[in-house]
Amino acid sequence: MASGGPEIEQLIQLLARLPGLGPRSARRAVLQLIKKKDQLMIPLSAALDRAVSAVKTCEICGNVDTVSPCTICADPRRAESGMLIVVEDVADLWALERAGVGAVRYHVLGGVLSPLDGVGPDDISIDDLLKRASEFKEIVLAINATVEGQTTAHYITDRLAGSGTKVTRLAHGVPVGGELDYLDEGTLSQALKARTEI
Amino acid sequence: MASGGPEIEQLIQLLARLPGLGPRSARRAVLQLIKKKDQLMIPLSAALDRAVSAVKTCEICGNVDTVSPCTICADPRRAESGMLIVVEDVADLWALERAGVGAVRYHVLGGVLSPLDGVGPDDISIDDLLKRASEFKEIVLAINATVEGQTTAHYITDRLAGSGTKVTRLAHGVPVGGELDYLDEGTLSQALKARTEI
Ligand SMILES: [Zn+2]
Ligand SMILES: [Zn+2]
Repeated sequence: MASGGPEIEQLIQLLARLPGLGPRSARRAVLQLIKKKDQLMIPLSAALDRAVSAVKTCEICGNVDTVSPCTICADPRRAESGMLIVVEDVADLWALERAGVGAVRYHVLGGVLSPLDGVGPDDISIDDLLKRASEFKEIVLAINATVEGQTTAHYITDRLAGSGTKVTRLAHGVPVGGELDYLDEGTLSQALKARTEI
Repeated sequence: MASGGPEIEQLIQLLARLPGLGPRSARRAVLQLIKKKDQLMIPLSAALDRAVSAVKTCEICGNVDTVSPCTICADPRRAESGMLIVVEDVADLWALERAGVGAVRYHVLGGVLSPLDGVGPDDISIDDLLKRASEFKEIVLAINATVEGQTTAHYITDRLAGSGTKVTRLAHGVPVGGELDYLDEGTLSQALKARTEI
C-alpha cells in the first residue's frame, strides 16, 4: 500500500465491514469522504461520535434509541391499542414503523431459535416477552417465515397458551406489486387459502 | 421517525451519501454499527477522527496521503524511471498502484475539461502539470476514454508540443478476461489495429 497511508487503509478496512460495502466500494467511499472533507467526512465523524455516546438499547423492548425506555415505549398513546408486535430484529421494527402500522408497541427478540447454531430460548429475549405479555390484548408474531422463525413462533405460542392473551401472526400472501411467478408455491397456496372478496 | 432518534437519523442520512450506499443500505449499515458498537462503531468513529486530522492532499501531485509531499513524491527511487502518469482522479492513481505499474510518479488532474459543465483548464491541475513536465522523460496520459477525457488528453498534448517530453497514452484493447461481444466496436477495432505477435 504505497498510496494512502495507514489511517486511510484502516478506514477502508472498517468501512468494508459494513453490509452493502465491499473492499472496492469502501475505497470509493473513502475517496468520496476525502474529496468532500468539509461537507461529508467531518460531519460523519461528528455524527458517529454523537451516536456512539447517545445510542442506547431500550430496556423494555430492545429497540435502539437515544433514550431508554425508547420513544415508542414511553409514548402512552401506544398502549391504547393493546397490541404488541414481536420482531426478530430492530430493522424489522423500523420497517413496520415506516409502513405506518399504527400506535402499537414492539418486542425485539434479537434473533430466532436455532438449535443447530446453539441458539436456545435463553439466548434471545423470550423471558422478557413472556413477562410483558399480560399487559397486552394481542401479541402479533411478525417473525420471518423461515424454518427458525416458524420454530420460534411455535415456541412462543406454546409458552403463551392459557395466558389469555391472543396470539396472531402476519398474513401470508402476495406482496403488493409482487409478480406471481416469482413467488414460491407455499406463499401462493397460502394466498389462495386466505383469499378475500373484492 | 418514531424509531431511532435524531442522532441515528442523521448518521443514516450521511452514510446514504456515500457511493454504493442508498438510504436502505445506510439504515442496515447503521444497525450493524449499533449491534457491533465495540468492534465496529467505536473503531470506525476513531478511525474517522484520525483520518480527518491526518489526511492531506499532496502539494506536488494531488494524491491523498497523510504527508505532503506524499509517500510517492518523496520516494527518490520513483524518479529513476522518468515516467509521470497523468490521471483524472486519486482513485485511478490507487488502481494503477494496485496493478503494480512500477516505480513511477503521478499527477492527479482532479477532473477533465468539460466546456458544457464550465470546466476549463484553470479548473483542473493542468498548469501544475506543465510546470512539472520538464522533470520527466515521458508523460503517460492515463485519462478515461470518454469524450471529455480525450479532449483533455488532446489539450495537454498540444500544450506539451515542442517541450521535448514524450507524451504517450495507455494502449486500447481487450481487457484481460474480457469477453469480445461485450466490448464496443471502437475498442475492438483499436485492439485489432494494435495486435501483437504471439
Ligand atoms: Zn422500547
Ligand atoms: Zn505526491
